[in-house]
Amino acid sequence: MKTELKKRIEVIEESLNKFLPACDNPQRIIYDAMRYSLFAGGKRLRPILMWETARMCGGDWKDVEPFACAMEMIHTYSLIHDDLPAMDNDDLRRGMPTNHIKFGEAHAILAGDALLNKAFEITSEYKYTNPERALRAMAVLAKSSGTEGMIGGQVVDLDAEGREISLDELKYIHLLKTGAIIRSSCVIGAVMAGADEDSINAVDEYARNLGVAFQIRDDILDVIGTAKELGKPIGSDEKSEKNTYVSLCGIDGSKKLVTEFSLKAKKALDRFGEKAGFLLKLTDYLVDRNK
Amino acid sequence: MKTELKKRIEVIEESLNKFLPACDNPQRIIYDAMRYSLFAGGKRLRPILMWETARMCGGDWKDVEPFACAMEMIHTYSLIHDDLPAMDNDDLRRGMPTNHIKFGEAHAILAGDALLNKAFEITSEYKYTNPERALRAMAVLAKSSGTEGMIGGQVVDLDAEGREISLDELKYIHLLKTGAIIRSSCVIGAVMAGADEDSINAVDEYARNLGVAFQIRDDILDVIGTAKELGKPIGSDEKSEKNTYVSLCGIDGSKKLVTEFSLKAKKALDRFGEKAGFLLKLTDYLVDRNK
Repeated sequence: MKTELKKRIEVIEESLNKFLPACDNPQRIIYDAMRYSLFAGGKRLRPILMWETARMCGGDWKDVEPFACAMEMIHTYSLIHDDLPAMDNDDLRRGMPTNHIKFGEAHAILAGDALLNKAFEITSEYKYTNPERALRAMAVLAKSSGTEGMIGGQVVDLDAEGREISLDELKYIHLLKTGAIIRSSCVIGAVMAGADEDSINAVDEYARNLGVAFQIRDDILDVIGTAKELGKPIGSDEKSEKNTYVSLCGIDGSKKLVTEFSLKAKKALDRFGEKAGFLLKLTDYLVDRNK
Repeated sequence: MKTELKKRIEVIEESLNKFLPACDNPQRIIYDAMRYSLFAGGKRLRPILMWETARMCGGDWKDVEPFACAMEMIHTYSLIHDDLPAMDNDDLRRGMPTNHIKFGEAHAILAGDALLNKAFEITSEYKYTNPERALRAMAVLAKSSGTEGMIGGQVVDLDAEGREISLDELKYIHLLKTGAIIRSSCVIGAVMAGADEDSINAVDEYARNLGVAFQIRDDILDVIGTAKELGKPIGSDEKSEKNTYVSLCGIDGSKKLVTEFSLKAKKALDRFGEKAGFLLKLTDYLVDRNK
Protein backbone atom coordinates (compact mmCIF):
# COMPACT_ATOMS: atom_id res chain seq x y z
CA MET A 1 0.00 0.00 0.00
CA LYS A 2 2.82 2.41 0.90
CA THR A 3 4.55 1.89 -2.48
CA GLU A 4 1.28 2.31 -4.35
CA LEU A 5 0.43 5.50 -2.45
CA LYS A 6 3.90 6.89 -3.09
CA LYS A 7 3.44 6.37 -6.85
CA ARG A 8 0.10 8.16 -6.78
CA ILE A 9 1.43 11.01 -4.65
CA GLU A 10 4.10 11.60 -7.32
CA VAL A 11 1.45 11.95 -10.03
CA ILE A 12 -0.61 14.29 -7.85
CA GLU A 13 2.36 16.50 -6.99
CA GLU A 14 3.36 16.72 -10.63
CA SER A 15 -0.11 18.04 -11.43
CA LEU A 16 -0.06 20.45 -8.48
CA ASN A 17 3.25 21.77 -9.76
CA LYS A 18 1.75 22.22 -13.22
CA PHE A 19 -1.28 24.13 -11.89
CA LEU A 20 0.77 26.25 -9.49
CA PRO A 21 4.30 26.75 -10.85
CA ALA A 22 6.78 29.09 -9.22
CA CYS A 23 6.46 32.55 -10.74
CA ASP A 24 8.87 35.41 -11.29
CA ASN A 25 6.84 38.59 -11.25
CA PRO A 26 6.45 41.43 -8.70
CA GLN A 27 4.07 39.33 -6.59
CA ARG A 28 6.32 36.24 -6.62
CA ILE A 29 6.33 36.10 -2.81
CA ILE A 30 2.70 34.99 -2.81
CA TYR A 31 3.50 32.07 -5.13
CA ASP A 32 6.37 31.12 -2.82
CA ALA A 33 4.08 31.23 0.21
CA MET A 34 1.38 29.18 -1.52
CA ARG A 35 3.88 26.60 -2.74
CA TYR A 36 5.61 26.42 0.65
CA SER A 37 2.47 25.00 2.25
CA LEU A 38 1.15 23.14 -0.80
CA PHE A 39 4.38 21.16 -1.14
CA ALA A 40 4.98 20.59 2.58
CA GLY A 41 4.49 16.87 2.12
CA GLY A 42 0.91 16.08 3.06
CA LYS A 43 -0.71 12.67 2.70
CA ARG A 44 -2.66 13.88 -0.38
CA LEU A 45 -5.54 11.88 1.07
CA ARG A 46 -8.31 13.84 -0.63
CA PRO A 47 -6.86 13.69 -4.17
CA ILE A 48 -6.12 9.98 -3.68
CA LEU A 49 -9.69 9.32 -2.54
CA MET A 50 -11.08 11.29 -5.47
CA TRP A 51 -8.88 9.53 -7.98
CA GLU A 52 -9.58 6.06 -6.61
CA THR A 53 -13.33 6.68 -6.44
CA ALA A 54 -13.27 7.82 -10.06
CA ARG A 55 -11.32 4.69 -11.00
CA MET A 56 -13.80 2.48 -9.16
CA CYS A 57 -16.59 4.15 -11.16
CA GLY A 58 -14.83 3.60 -14.50
CA GLY A 59 -12.92 6.88 -14.78
CA ASP A 60 -9.27 7.82 -14.41
CA TRP A 61 -6.86 10.51 -13.20
CA LYS A 62 -7.47 12.75 -16.20
CA ASP A 63 -11.17 12.96 -15.32
CA VAL A 64 -10.51 14.40 -11.88
CA GLU A 65 -7.10 16.08 -12.23
CA PRO A 66 -8.17 19.75 -11.81
CA PHE A 67 -10.65 18.90 -9.05
CA ALA A 68 -8.17 16.74 -7.14
CA CYS A 69 -5.62 19.57 -7.23
CA ALA A 70 -8.28 22.14 -6.32
CA MET A 71 -9.30 20.02 -3.34
CA GLU A 72 -5.72 19.83 -2.10
CA MET A 73 -5.39 23.62 -2.49
CA ILE A 74 -8.54 24.14 -0.43
CA HIS A 75 -7.33 21.71 2.23
CA THR A 76 -4.00 23.55 2.34
CA TYR A 77 -5.55 27.02 2.58
CA SER A 78 -7.69 25.83 5.50
CA LEU A 79 -4.56 24.67 7.35
CA ILE A 80 -2.78 28.00 6.75
CA HIS A 81 -5.73 30.00 8.09
CA ASP A 82 -6.35 27.57 10.99
CA ASP A 83 -2.75 28.00 12.13
CA LEU A 84 -2.98 31.84 12.26
CA PRO A 85 -2.46 33.63 15.59
CA ALA A 86 -6.13 34.65 15.66
CA MET A 87 -7.16 31.00 15.28
CA ASP A 88 -5.15 28.03 16.66
CA ASN A 89 -1.89 30.03 16.82
CA ASP A 90 0.31 27.08 15.83
CA ASP A 91 4.01 27.49 15.04
CA LEU A 92 4.63 24.04 13.60
CA ARG A 93 2.88 22.01 10.92
CA ARG A 94 4.27 18.73 9.55
CA GLY A 95 7.53 19.45 11.37
CA MET A 96 8.01 22.82 9.62
CA PRO A 97 7.32 26.43 10.62
CA THR A 98 3.72 27.34 9.78
CA ASN A 99 3.07 29.72 6.91
CA HIS A 100 2.71 32.88 9.02
CA ILE A 101 5.89 32.07 10.96
CA LYS A 102 7.75 31.75 7.66
CA PHE A 103 6.13 34.55 5.61
CA GLY A 104 4.45 36.80 8.16
CA GLU A 105 0.78 37.05 9.00
CA ALA A 106 -0.35 39.30 6.15
CA HIS A 107 1.20 37.06 3.51
CA ALA A 108 -0.18 33.93 5.19
CA ILE A 109 -3.71 35.36 5.09
CA LEU A 110 -3.25 36.25 1.42
CA ALA A 111 -1.63 32.88 0.59
CA GLY A 112 -4.67 31.15 2.05
CA ASP A 113 -7.04 33.42 0.12
CA ALA A 114 -5.02 32.83 -3.02
CA LEU A 115 -5.09 29.02 -2.70
CA LEU A 116 -8.86 29.05 -2.26
CA ASN A 117 -9.15 31.36 -5.25
CA LYS A 118 -6.74 29.24 -7.30
CA ALA A 119 -8.89 26.15 -6.71
CA PHE A 120 -11.66 27.84 -8.66
CA GLU A 121 -9.30 29.26 -11.25
CA ILE A 122 -8.00 25.85 -12.26
CA THR A 123 -11.41 24.15 -12.22
CA SER A 124 -13.08 26.91 -14.26
CA GLU A 125 -10.25 27.29 -16.80
CA TYR A 126 -9.95 23.58 -17.61
CA LYS A 127 -11.35 22.42 -20.96
CA TYR A 128 -14.00 19.78 -20.22
CA THR A 129 -15.74 17.45 -22.64
CA ASN A 130 -18.80 17.67 -20.39
CA PRO A 131 -19.26 21.21 -18.94
CA GLU A 132 -22.51 20.33 -17.10
CA ARG A 133 -20.71 17.61 -15.20
CA ALA A 134 -17.86 20.00 -14.36
CA LEU A 135 -20.31 22.62 -13.07
CA ARG A 136 -21.97 20.00 -10.87
CA ALA A 137 -18.56 18.97 -9.49
CA MET A 138 -17.69 22.63 -8.83
CA ALA A 139 -20.95 23.09 -6.95
CA VAL A 140 -20.18 20.02 -4.79
CA LEU A 141 -16.66 21.34 -4.19
CA ALA A 142 -17.77 24.86 -3.31
CA LYS A 143 -20.59 23.81 -1.00
CA SER A 144 -18.38 21.37 0.91
CA SER A 145 -15.74 24.00 1.62
CA GLY A 146 -18.18 26.76 2.60
CA THR A 147 -20.46 27.76 5.46
CA GLU A 148 -22.44 24.51 5.25
CA GLY A 149 -19.20 22.54 5.10
CA MET A 150 -15.61 23.10 6.19
CA ILE A 151 -15.86 26.79 7.15
CA GLY A 152 -19.11 26.17 9.03
CA GLY A 153 -17.42 23.40 11.02
CA GLN A 154 -14.47 25.60 11.83
CA VAL A 155 -16.81 28.32 13.11
CA VAL A 156 -18.68 25.95 15.45
CA ASP A 157 -15.35 24.44 16.56
CA LEU A 158 -13.99 27.91 17.41
CA ASP A 159 -17.07 28.76 19.42
CA ALA A 160 -16.87 25.43 21.30
CA GLU A 161 -13.30 25.94 22.48
CA GLY A 162 -12.94 26.23 26.23
CA ARG A 163 -16.39 24.86 27.03
CA GLU A 164 -17.57 21.25 27.26
CA ILE A 165 -19.77 20.09 24.43
CA SER A 166 -21.98 17.04 23.80
CA LEU A 167 -21.09 14.13 21.54
CA ASP A 168 -23.76 15.34 19.12
CA GLU A 169 -22.13 18.75 18.89
CA LEU A 170 -18.73 17.13 18.34
CA LYS A 171 -20.18 14.98 15.55
CA TYR A 172 -21.71 18.07 13.96
CA ILE A 173 -18.38 19.89 14.05
CA HIS A 174 -16.48 17.06 12.41
CA LEU A 175 -19.18 16.21 9.91
CA LEU A 176 -18.66 19.74 8.59
CA LYS A 177 -15.07 20.65 9.41
CA THR A 178 -13.24 17.57 8.12
CA GLY A 179 -16.05 15.32 6.90
CA ALA A 180 -17.51 17.59 4.23
CA ILE A 181 -14.48 17.75 1.96
CA ILE A 182 -13.69 14.04 2.39
CA ARG A 183 -17.24 13.37 1.23
CA SER A 184 -17.06 15.80 -1.64
CA SER A 185 -13.68 14.38 -2.73
CA CYS A 186 -15.31 11.00 -3.24
CA VAL A 187 -18.56 12.36 -4.68
CA ILE A 188 -16.68 14.47 -7.23
CA GLY A 189 -14.69 11.38 -8.24
CA ALA A 190 -17.94 9.55 -8.93
CA VAL A 191 -19.58 12.52 -10.67
CA MET A 192 -16.62 13.18 -12.98
CA ALA A 193 -16.40 9.47 -13.86
CA GLY A 194 -20.03 9.66 -14.99
CA ALA A 195 -21.40 7.33 -12.27
CA ASP A 196 -25.19 6.88 -11.93
CA GLU A 197 -27.06 8.48 -9.00
CA ASP A 198 -27.23 5.25 -6.94
CA SER A 199 -23.47 4.83 -7.19
CA ILE A 200 -22.92 8.48 -6.26
CA ASN A 201 -25.10 7.99 -3.18
CA ALA A 202 -23.22 4.81 -2.19
CA VAL A 203 -19.89 6.65 -2.53
CA ASP A 204 -21.27 9.48 -0.39
CA GLU A 205 -22.33 6.99 2.31
CA TYR A 206 -18.86 5.41 2.21
CA ALA A 207 -17.08 8.74 2.53
CA ARG A 208 -19.34 10.04 5.30
CA ASN A 209 -18.45 7.06 7.49
CA LEU A 210 -14.80 7.06 6.49
CA GLY A 211 -14.60 10.74 7.45
CA VAL A 212 -15.86 10.00 10.96
CA ALA A 213 -13.50 7.02 11.43
CA PHE A 214 -10.60 9.11 10.11
CA GLN A 215 -11.32 12.00 12.49
CA ILE A 216 -11.60 9.74 15.55
CA ARG A 217 -8.29 8.12 14.60
CA ASP A 218 -6.82 11.63 14.38
CA ASP A 219 -8.02 12.43 17.89
CA ILE A 220 -6.55 9.14 19.19
CA LEU A 221 -3.21 9.88 17.54
CA ASP A 222 -3.04 13.29 19.21
CA VAL A 223 -2.94 11.38 22.50
CA ILE A 224 -1.00 8.17 21.76
CA GLY A 225 1.16 9.27 18.81
CA THR A 226 4.69 10.64 19.04
CA ALA A 227 5.69 14.16 18.09
CA LYS A 228 8.21 12.81 15.58
CA GLU A 229 5.64 10.71 13.73
CA LEU A 230 3.05 13.47 13.69
CA GLY A 231 5.36 16.38 12.91
CA LYS A 232 3.61 18.48 15.55
CA PRO A 233 3.51 18.56 19.34
CA ILE A 234 1.36 15.79 20.82
CA GLY A 235 -1.29 16.53 23.40
CA SER A 236 -2.02 19.84 21.68
CA ASP A 237 -5.78 19.16 21.71
CA GLU A 238 -5.76 18.65 25.49
CA LYS A 239 -3.59 21.70 26.04
CA SER A 240 -5.94 23.96 24.08
CA GLU A 241 -8.97 22.36 25.78
CA LYS A 242 -10.29 21.08 22.47
CA ASN A 243 -13.21 18.72 22.63
CA THR A 244 -12.26 15.43 20.99
CA TYR A 245 -13.65 11.93 20.73
CA VAL A 246 -10.99 10.84 23.23
CA SER A 247 -12.00 13.46 25.79
CA LEU A 248 -15.66 12.47 25.42
CA CYS A 249 -15.47 8.66 24.86
CA GLY A 250 -12.02 7.66 26.17
CA ILE A 251 -9.33 5.83 24.19
CA ASP A 252 -11.05 2.43 24.16
CA GLY A 253 -14.44 3.86 23.37
CA SER A 254 -12.88 5.85 20.52
CA LYS A 255 -11.11 2.80 19.11
CA LYS A 256 -14.42 0.91 19.07
CA LEU A 257 -16.02 3.79 17.17
CA VAL A 258 -13.24 3.74 14.56
CA THR A 259 -13.92 0.03 13.91
CA GLU A 260 -17.66 0.60 13.78
CA PHE A 261 -17.52 3.49 11.31
CA SER A 262 -14.90 1.90 9.06
CA LEU A 263 -17.06 -1.25 8.79
CA LYS A 264 -20.05 0.90 7.85
CA ALA A 265 -17.91 2.71 5.28
CA LYS A 266 -16.71 -0.49 3.63
CA LYS A 267 -20.22 -1.99 3.61
CA ALA A 268 -21.40 0.95 1.50
CA LEU A 269 -19.06 -0.17 -1.28
CA ASP A 270 -20.63 -3.66 -1.64
CA ARG A 271 -22.30 -2.73 -4.93
CA PHE A 272 -18.92 -2.10 -6.59
CA GLY A 273 -17.64 -5.68 -6.00
CA GLU A 274 -14.00 -6.27 -6.92
CA LYS A 275 -13.57 -2.75 -8.24
CA ALA A 276 -13.70 -1.49 -4.65
CA GLY A 277 -10.62 -3.55 -3.71
CA PHE A 278 -8.12 -0.73 -3.45
CA LEU A 279 -10.51 1.59 -1.62
CA LEU A 280 -11.27 -1.13 0.95
CA LYS A 281 -7.59 -1.69 1.60
CA LEU A 282 -7.00 2.08 1.74
CA THR A 283 -9.76 2.42 4.33
CA ASP A 284 -8.09 -0.13 6.63
CA TYR A 285 -4.75 1.55 6.06
CA LEU A 286 -6.12 4.97 6.99
CA VAL A 287 -7.88 3.94 10.18
CA ASP A 288 -4.84 1.94 11.38
CA ARG A 289 -2.30 4.69 10.56
CA ASN A 290 0.19 5.98 13.13
CA LYS A 291 0.56 9.47 11.66
CA MET B 1 -28.38 59.35 -12.25
CA LYS B 2 -28.70 59.11 -8.46
CA THR B 3 -32.33 57.95 -8.67
CA GLU B 4 -31.53 55.44 -11.38
CA LEU B 5 -28.60 54.05 -9.38
CA LYS B 6 -30.77 53.79 -6.28
CA LYS B 7 -33.30 51.69 -8.20
CA ARG B 8 -30.59 49.36 -9.45
CA ILE B 9 -28.99 49.04 -6.03
CA GLU B 10 -32.34 47.87 -4.67
CA VAL B 11 -32.51 45.09 -7.27
CA ILE B 12 -28.92 44.07 -6.54
CA GLU B 13 -29.43 43.99 -2.77
CA GLU B 14 -32.58 41.93 -3.17
CA SER B 15 -30.53 39.34 -5.09
CA LEU B 16 -27.68 39.44 -2.58
CA ASN B 17 -30.22 38.79 0.15
CA LYS B 18 -31.61 35.86 -1.80
CA PHE B 19 -28.15 34.31 -2.34
CA LEU B 20 -27.02 34.94 1.25
CA PRO B 21 -30.03 34.90 3.58
CA ALA B 22 -29.65 35.02 7.36
CA CYS B 23 -29.40 31.51 8.72
CA ASP B 24 -30.38 29.93 12.02
CA ASN B 25 -28.01 27.00 12.54
CA PRO B 26 -25.06 26.41 14.89
CA GLN B 27 -22.76 28.43 12.64
CA ARG B 28 -25.20 31.36 12.31
CA ILE B 29 -22.55 33.81 13.52
CA ILE B 30 -20.63 33.43 10.26
CA TYR B 31 -23.73 34.34 8.25
CA ASP B 32 -24.20 37.38 10.50
CA ALA B 33 -20.58 38.43 9.97
CA MET B 34 -20.79 37.95 6.19
CA ARG B 35 -24.06 39.86 5.96
CA TYR B 36 -22.78 42.64 8.24
CA SER B 37 -20.17 43.63 5.67
CA LEU B 38 -22.11 42.64 2.56
CA PHE B 39 -25.02 44.90 3.51
CA ALA B 40 -22.93 47.79 4.85
CA GLY B 41 -24.17 50.03 2.04
CA GLY B 42 -21.53 49.99 -0.66
CA LYS B 43 -21.88 51.72 -4.02
CA ARG B 44 -22.44 48.31 -5.72
CA LEU B 45 -20.29 49.69 -8.51
CA ARG B 46 -19.12 46.32 -9.85
CA PRO B 47 -22.59 44.74 -10.11
CA ILE B 48 -23.92 47.93 -11.69
CA LEU B 49 -21.11 47.94 -14.26
CA MET B 50 -21.67 44.26 -15.04
CA TRP B 51 -25.41 44.71 -15.40
CA GLU B 52 -25.12 47.81 -17.56
CA THR B 53 -22.46 46.24 -19.79
CA ALA B 54 -24.68 43.20 -20.26
CA ARG B 55 -27.61 45.50 -21.13
CA MET B 56 -25.49 47.42 -23.62
CA CYS B 57 -24.62 44.08 -25.27
CA GLY B 58 -28.25 42.98 -25.49
CA GLY B 59 -28.57 41.08 -22.19
CA ASP B 60 -30.30 41.82 -18.90
CA TRP B 61 -30.04 41.44 -15.11
CA LYS B 62 -31.07 37.77 -15.18
CA ASP B 63 -28.06 36.96 -17.40
CA VAL B 64 -25.56 38.27 -14.86
CA GLU B 65 -27.39 37.98 -11.54
CA PRO B 66 -25.23 35.24 -9.91
CA PHE B 67 -22.00 36.75 -11.24
CA ALA B 68 -22.89 40.29 -10.17
CA CYS B 69 -23.61 39.05 -6.65
CA ALA B 70 -20.47 36.88 -6.64
CA MET B 71 -18.41 39.91 -7.66
CA GLU B 72 -19.83 41.99 -4.81
CA MET B 73 -19.08 39.14 -2.37
CA ILE B 74 -15.48 39.00 -3.59
CA HIS B 75 -15.13 42.78 -3.33
CA THR B 76 -16.54 42.61 0.22
CA TYR B 77 -14.27 39.76 1.34
CA SER B 78 -11.25 41.71 0.09
CA LEU B 79 -12.27 44.72 2.20
CA ILE B 80 -12.72 42.55 5.32
CA HIS B 81 -9.28 40.97 4.93
CA ASP B 82 -7.62 44.30 3.96
CA ASP B 83 -8.92 45.85 7.17
CA LEU B 84 -7.43 43.13 9.43
CA PRO B 85 -4.80 44.07 12.03
CA ALA B 86 -2.11 42.17 10.07
CA MET B 87 -2.96 44.21 6.95
CA ASP B 88 -4.21 47.84 7.02
CA ASN B 89 -5.46 47.59 10.63
CA ASP B 90 -8.50 49.78 10.03
CA ASP B 91 -11.24 50.23 12.64
CA LEU B 92 -13.76 52.03 10.47
CA ARG B 93 -15.24 51.27 7.07
CA ARG B 94 -18.14 53.21 5.56
CA GLY B 95 -18.63 54.87 8.95
CA MET B 96 -19.10 51.55 10.77
CA PRO B 97 -16.77 49.34 12.84
CA THR B 98 -14.83 47.00 10.56
CA ASN B 99 -15.69 43.31 10.60
CA HIS B 100 -12.93 42.24 13.00
CA ILE B 101 -13.81 45.04 15.42
CA LYS B 102 -17.41 43.87 15.44
CA PHE B 103 -16.95 40.05 15.30
CA GLY B 104 -13.34 39.45 16.35
CA GLU B 105 -10.38 38.61 14.19
CA ALA B 106 -10.97 34.86 13.80
CA HIS B 107 -14.54 35.36 12.64
CA ALA B 108 -13.50 38.18 10.31
CA ILE B 109 -10.91 35.94 8.63
CA LEU B 110 -13.52 33.20 8.25
CA ALA B 111 -16.22 35.62 7.06
CA GLY B 112 -13.83 36.76 4.32
CA ASP B 113 -12.99 33.18 3.37
CA ALA B 114 -16.68 32.33 3.38
CA LEU B 115 -17.65 35.24 1.11
CA LEU B 116 -14.98 34.26 -1.43
CA ASN B 117 -16.16 30.66 -1.23
CA LYS B 118 -19.83 31.71 -1.51
CA ALA B 119 -19.07 33.57 -4.74
CA PHE B 120 -18.17 30.26 -6.33
CA GLU B 121 -21.03 28.41 -4.65
CA ILE B 122 -23.66 30.65 -6.17
CA THR B 123 -22.08 30.78 -9.62
CA SER B 124 -21.58 27.00 -9.82
CA GLU B 125 -25.01 26.08 -8.42
CA TYR B 126 -26.97 28.34 -10.77
CA LYS B 127 -28.86 26.66 -13.62
CA TYR B 128 -27.57 28.14 -16.87
CA THR B 129 -28.95 27.75 -20.35
CA ASN B 130 -25.38 27.96 -21.64
CA PRO B 131 -22.90 26.18 -19.30
CA GLU B 132 -19.86 26.87 -21.54
CA ARG B 133 -20.51 30.59 -21.28
CA ALA B 134 -20.91 30.33 -17.50
CA LEU B 135 -17.60 28.45 -17.18
CA ARG B 136 -15.87 31.15 -19.21
CA ALA B 137 -17.35 33.84 -16.96
CA MET B 138 -16.23 31.90 -13.88
CA ALA B 139 -12.71 31.67 -15.26
CA VAL B 140 -12.66 35.45 -15.87
CA LEU B 141 -14.01 36.05 -12.36
CA ALA B 142 -11.52 33.69 -10.67
CA LYS B 143 -8.49 34.95 -12.55
CA SER B 144 -9.30 38.59 -11.83
CA SER B 145 -9.58 38.01 -8.09
CA GLY B 146 -6.46 35.83 -7.80
CA THR B 147 -2.68 36.14 -7.82
CA GLU B 148 -2.66 37.69 -11.32
CA GLY B 149 -5.42 40.08 -10.26
CA MET B 150 -6.70 41.51 -7.01
CA ILE B 151 -4.67 39.38 -4.58
CA GLY B 152 -1.50 39.91 -6.62
CA GLY B 153 -2.04 43.68 -6.47
CA GLN B 154 -2.59 43.58 -2.73
CA VAL B 155 0.67 41.65 -2.28
CA VAL B 156 2.71 44.18 -4.27
CA ASP B 157 0.94 47.03 -2.46
CA LEU B 158 1.83 45.52 0.94
CA ASP B 159 5.45 45.15 -0.05
CA ALA B 160 5.55 48.75 -1.33
CA GLU B 161 4.34 50.28 1.92
CA GLY B 162 6.86 52.52 3.62
CA ARG B 163 9.13 52.86 0.58
CA GLU B 164 8.88 55.19 -2.39
CA ILE B 165 7.84 53.56 -5.64
CA SER B 166 7.79 54.63 -9.28
CA LEU B 167 4.67 55.60 -11.22
CA ASP B 168 5.04 52.36 -13.19
CA GLU B 169 4.95 50.31 -10.00
CA LEU B 170 1.92 52.27 -8.78
CA LYS B 171 0.16 51.61 -12.08
CA TYR B 172 0.97 47.91 -11.81
CA ILE B 173 -0.45 47.75 -8.28
CA HIS B 174 -3.71 49.40 -9.24
CA LEU B 175 -4.09 47.57 -12.53
CA LEU B 176 -4.19 44.41 -10.43
CA LYS B 177 -5.55 45.43 -7.05
CA THR B 178 -8.59 47.45 -8.07
CA GLY B 179 -8.45 47.38 -11.86
CA ALA B 180 -8.71 43.63 -12.41
CA ILE B 181 -12.16 43.12 -10.94
CA ILE B 182 -13.56 46.29 -12.49
CA ARG B 183 -12.40 44.90 -15.84
CA SER B 184 -13.76 41.43 -15.18
CA SER B 185 -17.09 42.89 -14.04
CA CYS B 186 -17.54 44.48 -17.46
CA VAL B 187 -16.10 41.55 -19.41
CA ILE B 188 -18.39 39.07 -17.62
CA GLY B 189 -21.36 41.31 -18.46
CA ALA B 190 -20.43 41.14 -22.14
CA VAL B 191 -19.67 37.40 -22.06
CA MET B 192 -22.93 36.46 -20.34
CA ALA B 193 -24.89 38.65 -22.77
CA GLY B 194 -23.37 36.65 -25.63
CA ALA B 195 -21.36 39.53 -27.12
CA ASP B 196 -18.90 38.84 -29.95
CA GLU B 197 -15.13 38.88 -29.29
CA ASP B 198 -14.63 42.40 -30.70
CA SER B 199 -17.28 43.79 -28.38
CA ILE B 200 -15.77 41.92 -25.42
CA ASN B 201 -12.39 43.46 -26.22
CA ALA B 202 -13.89 46.95 -26.50
CA VAL B 203 -15.60 46.52 -23.15
CA ASP B 204 -12.32 45.38 -21.65
CA GLU B 205 -10.56 48.48 -23.02
CA TYR B 206 -13.30 50.68 -21.56
CA ALA B 207 -13.08 49.07 -18.13
CA ARG B 208 -9.29 49.12 -17.99
CA ASN B 209 -9.27 52.88 -18.46
CA LEU B 210 -12.25 53.45 -16.21
CA GLY B 211 -10.47 51.49 -13.48
CA VAL B 212 -7.44 53.77 -13.63
CA ALA B 213 -9.56 56.95 -13.62
CA PHE B 214 -11.62 55.59 -10.73
CA GLN B 215 -8.54 54.76 -8.65
CA ILE B 216 -6.93 58.15 -9.21
CA ARG B 217 -10.20 59.84 -8.18
CA ASP B 218 -10.11 57.65 -5.03
CA ASP B 219 -6.62 58.85 -4.21
CA ILE B 220 -7.67 62.48 -4.77
CA LEU B 221 -10.69 62.03 -2.49
CA ASP B 222 -8.50 60.69 0.28
CA VAL B 223 -6.85 64.11 0.31
CA ILE B 224 -9.64 66.57 -0.55
CA GLY B 225 -12.71 64.68 0.67
CA THR B 226 -14.32 65.05 4.07
CA ALA B 227 -14.47 62.26 6.65
CA LYS B 228 -18.27 62.51 6.76
CA GLU B 229 -18.66 62.01 3.01
CA LEU B 230 -16.17 59.16 2.87
CA GLY B 231 -17.21 57.32 6.03
CA LYS B 232 -13.57 56.85 6.92
CA PRO B 233 -10.79 59.10 8.24
CA ILE B 234 -9.32 61.30 5.50
CA GLY B 235 -5.60 61.51 4.96
CA SER B 236 -5.25 57.82 5.90
CA ASP B 237 -3.10 57.13 2.83
CA GLU B 238 -0.62 59.81 3.80
CA LYS B 239 -0.59 58.68 7.42
CA SER B 240 0.25 55.09 6.47
CA GLU B 241 2.82 56.29 3.92
CA LYS B 242 0.88 54.75 1.06
CA ASN B 243 2.03 55.57 -2.42
CA THR B 244 -0.80 57.24 -4.32
CA TYR B 245 -1.26 59.13 -7.56
CA VAL B 246 -1.49 62.31 -5.50
CA SER B 247 1.83 61.68 -3.75
CA LEU B 248 3.51 60.97 -7.09
CA CYS B 249 1.75 63.40 -9.47
CA GLY B 250 0.21 66.04 -7.19
CA ILE B 251 -3.47 67.04 -7.06
CA ASP B 252 -3.54 68.90 -10.39
CA GLY B 253 -1.53 66.23 -12.20
CA SER B 254 -3.87 63.59 -10.82
CA LYS B 255 -6.97 65.51 -11.92
CA LYS B 256 -5.56 65.76 -15.44
CA LEU B 257 -4.97 62.00 -15.46
CA VAL B 258 -8.57 61.35 -14.39
CA THR B 259 -9.82 63.37 -17.37
CA GLU B 260 -7.41 61.65 -19.74
CA PHE B 261 -8.30 58.11 -18.70
CA SER B 262 -12.03 58.71 -18.58
CA LEU B 263 -11.92 60.09 -22.13
CA LYS B 264 -10.03 56.99 -23.28
CA ALA B 265 -12.59 54.82 -21.51
CA LYS B 266 -15.54 56.50 -23.18
CA LYS B 267 -13.88 56.40 -26.59
CA ALA B 268 -13.66 52.59 -26.35
CA LEU B 269 -17.47 52.46 -26.31
CA ASP B 270 -17.90 54.21 -29.70
CA ARG B 271 -18.89 50.99 -31.46
CA PHE B 272 -21.96 50.61 -29.22
CA GLY B 273 -23.51 53.93 -30.31
CA GLU B 274 -26.64 55.00 -28.40
CA LYS B 275 -26.67 51.78 -26.37
CA ALA B 276 -23.63 53.07 -24.47
CA GLY B 277 -25.57 56.13 -23.23
CA PHE B 278 -26.02 55.09 -19.62
CA LEU B 279 -22.46 53.77 -19.27
CA LEU B 280 -21.07 57.06 -20.63
CA LYS B 281 -23.09 59.05 -18.12
CA LEU B 282 -22.12 56.65 -15.35
CA THR B 283 -18.44 57.10 -16.22
CA ASP B 284 -18.69 60.88 -15.82
CA TYR B 285 -20.63 60.44 -12.60
CA LEU B 286 -17.99 58.09 -11.15
CA VAL B 287 -14.97 60.21 -11.95
CA ASP B 288 -16.66 63.36 -10.62
CA ARG B 289 -17.92 61.73 -7.42
CA ASN B 290 -17.25 63.18 -3.96
CA LYS B 291 -17.36 59.91 -2.05
